[in-house]
Amino acid sequence: MGEKIGLAPVGLGRWAKVLTRGIQRGDAVELVSCFSRDEARRTAFQEEFGVPNAASSFEQLLADPAVEGIIVTTPNDTHRELIVQALEAGKGVYVDKPIAHTLQDAAEIAAVAERTGKVLAVGHSARRLAGSREQKAWIEDGRLGDVSLAEANFSNERGLELTTDTWRYFSDRSPGGTMIQLGVHHADNLQYLLGPVRSVSAHARRLFTRAEVPDAVMAILEFESGALGYIGCGWASPGVYTLNLQGTKANLRYDLDFTHWHESHEADAHSTLLSQGYGESERTPLTLAPTDMFREQLEEFGRAIRGEATVEVGAREATRALAVVHASLLSSERNGQAVELAEVLEGAGAAIA
Amino acid sequence: MGEKIGLAPVGLGRWAKVLTRGIQRGDAVELVSCFSRDEARRTAFQEEFGVPNAASSFEQLLADPAVEGIIVTTPNDTHRELIVQALEAGKGVYVDKPIAHTLQDAAEIAAVAERTGKVLAVGHSARRLAGSREQKAWIEDGRLGDVSLAEANFSNERGLELTTDTWRYFSDRSPGGTMIQLGVHHADNLQYLLGPVRSVSAHARRLFTRAEVPDAVMAILEFESGALGYIGCGWASPGVYTLNLQGTKANLRYDLDFTHWHESHEADAHSTLLSQGYGESERTPLTLAPTDMFREQLEEFGRAIRGEATVEVGAREATRALAVVHASLLSSERNGQAVELAEVLEGAGAAIA
Repeated sequence: MGEKIGLAPVGLGRWAKVLTRGIQRGDAVELVSCFSRDEARRTAFQEEFGVPNAASSFEQLLADPAVEGIIVTTPNDTHRELIVQALEAGKGVYVDKPIAHTLQDAAEIAAVAERTGKVLAVGHSARRLAGSREQKAWIEDGRLGDVSLAEANFSNERGLELTTDTWRYFSDRSPGGTMIQLGVHHADNLQYLLGPVRSVSAHARRLFTRAEVPDAVMAILEFESGALGYIGCGWASPGVYTLNLQGTKANLRYDLDFTHWHESHEADAHSTLLSQGYGESERTPLTLAPTDMFREQLEEFGRAIRGEATVEVGAREATRALAVVHASLLSSERNGQAVELAEVLEGAGAAIA
Repeated sequence: MGEKIGLAPVGLGRWAKVLTRGIQRGDAVELVSCFSRDEARRTAFQEEFGVPNAASSFEQLLADPAVEGIIVTTPNDTHRELIVQALEAGKGVYVDKPIAHTLQDAAEIAAVAERTGKVLAVGHSARRLAGSREQKAWIEDGRLGDVSLAEANFSNERGLELTTDTWRYFSDRSPGGTMIQLGVHHADNLQYLLGPVRSVSAHARRLFTRAEVPDAVMAILEFESGALGYIGCGWASPGVYTLNLQGTKANLRYDLDFTHWHESHEADAHSTLLSQGYGESERTPLTLAPTDMFREQLEEFGRAIRGEATVEVGAREATRALAVVHASLLSSERNGQAVELAEVLEGAGAAIA
């Protein structure tokens, strides 16, 4: 065990590279190995990022004592198998959002993490953006007052580009389309800010995509607090990332230029958080303390493996975000009738206290 | 019959004054009389705006041949009786939104307007804002592409101030609270932009108001085109007025500083419409041709009485906006299940072809 905490990515595509750049902006954790089924891809990844080793099989990776934790960025429907195997092998696991494509898989992942006592971190990174942190501070210290409405949108053009070459095209591999890929971020953000969602009413539509999955979803969330929330997510327009809060004392309006999302050390600089009080025509831009969400969450993950930190988003939080997705899809099948989160969680054996 | 078209306001409160200022910015129509049950208020209104006559009863006002049309700004639940009486007396009628508080009343108003052949104009003025007009142009000439998501919010703090002294406090006089007072504007705007709504899923909540009516409403609209729309409206926060469109070719984001709403010749100057295409990080502010919604709609109303114009928003359009409100309330009672507009319209005898 080196001074730095040793991690290894599994699935060496675009997102593994984004996360690796985040890791390499700091010095708390380092990549000690990597794995992809594609040998050429392994070699290229090693060269690009200076990773000393590459495993020729997932089992070999898990047998490497230098690997303290693995980073899973493979397709959603492969998460469960890889994560369970890694946890059983004694490794910590970071998995990108969503925790899995189904709540059944999420429940099994959560159970194995609980049983093994190993660290499981889920990459709901958006709550770490400076704007989210500032919104949370305004709620907690009372500056916002009581929140009645919270509206969020996360959209891009991905649905217009999907072909059968990608797993995201298929409803059994990526149920909910834009909702499980984009909307799930706000399902976490909103529960981070406003507490647990009780029920969801939603409509999901396939409008302009050729894929099997929805490219337009709107969901109304009822929080246990009584507040109402909204998530809009589309896959057939230029990119949008907004999260607006309306409180009895003030409003906060957050807008992120998503084209800088992957450079998380720069994302905050391309975001604005505006506050508005009573009698204020103009919105006031707030100063945001810079964050680096990908770096921070992976360093937290590494430190948690060593027992030096607690993971902010684990199976519980990630499962509740995924439950909003699945409650949305079920509600849409029921023509918008509200679906309690408890129903989809219990149905999947994923009761979350 | 003078050169200018002679109108007379009924109900001489704050909104009658706002509309009168709009009229007096132009020279096509003029106030020839006015009526309120309160004599002191009549006199004060005459003096403030230089109105030559005041009627001592509504019947007297309707008997005045100089009055070609009346302007109704009384509480929503009084609209039907006044409007029907005026139409039967041969007068044109302008009524502020909503057309009525119930769809039954709206149906009766529409039937009487149809039977008498008199002009009925409804003050859904917001569609006349420069931003709305520009959004409509982008949809019609194809610059926006196909719209998948449309999101609108209209909120202010009114619900926190309501007391039993105002009709807006009571659910039988103002059903839906913030939805019938504010949300109904976007129910018209969105149907103006995207065509008829087919069904609505909504949740309405009383959170922080003491009034009987909701101060937080969220509604998802399904348009006949297949697009999804959203209306958020609150009565427990600083003011918000936004309308955002997501198309396959571009997004448009509209934001109005509502504190200038009542000065409609200046409202556009306090609004922004931003466009965003693919690969454009920055949004481009669009130049908006100034409008004056209150003046324009009342001049159009006057010219329509003389047969020189067609009313843009009549009973049909206004009833469809009100139907979105009532479908929202019924959906909320049904726990979010989608309610077809046809159901609430037919239930009220207000079938709109």
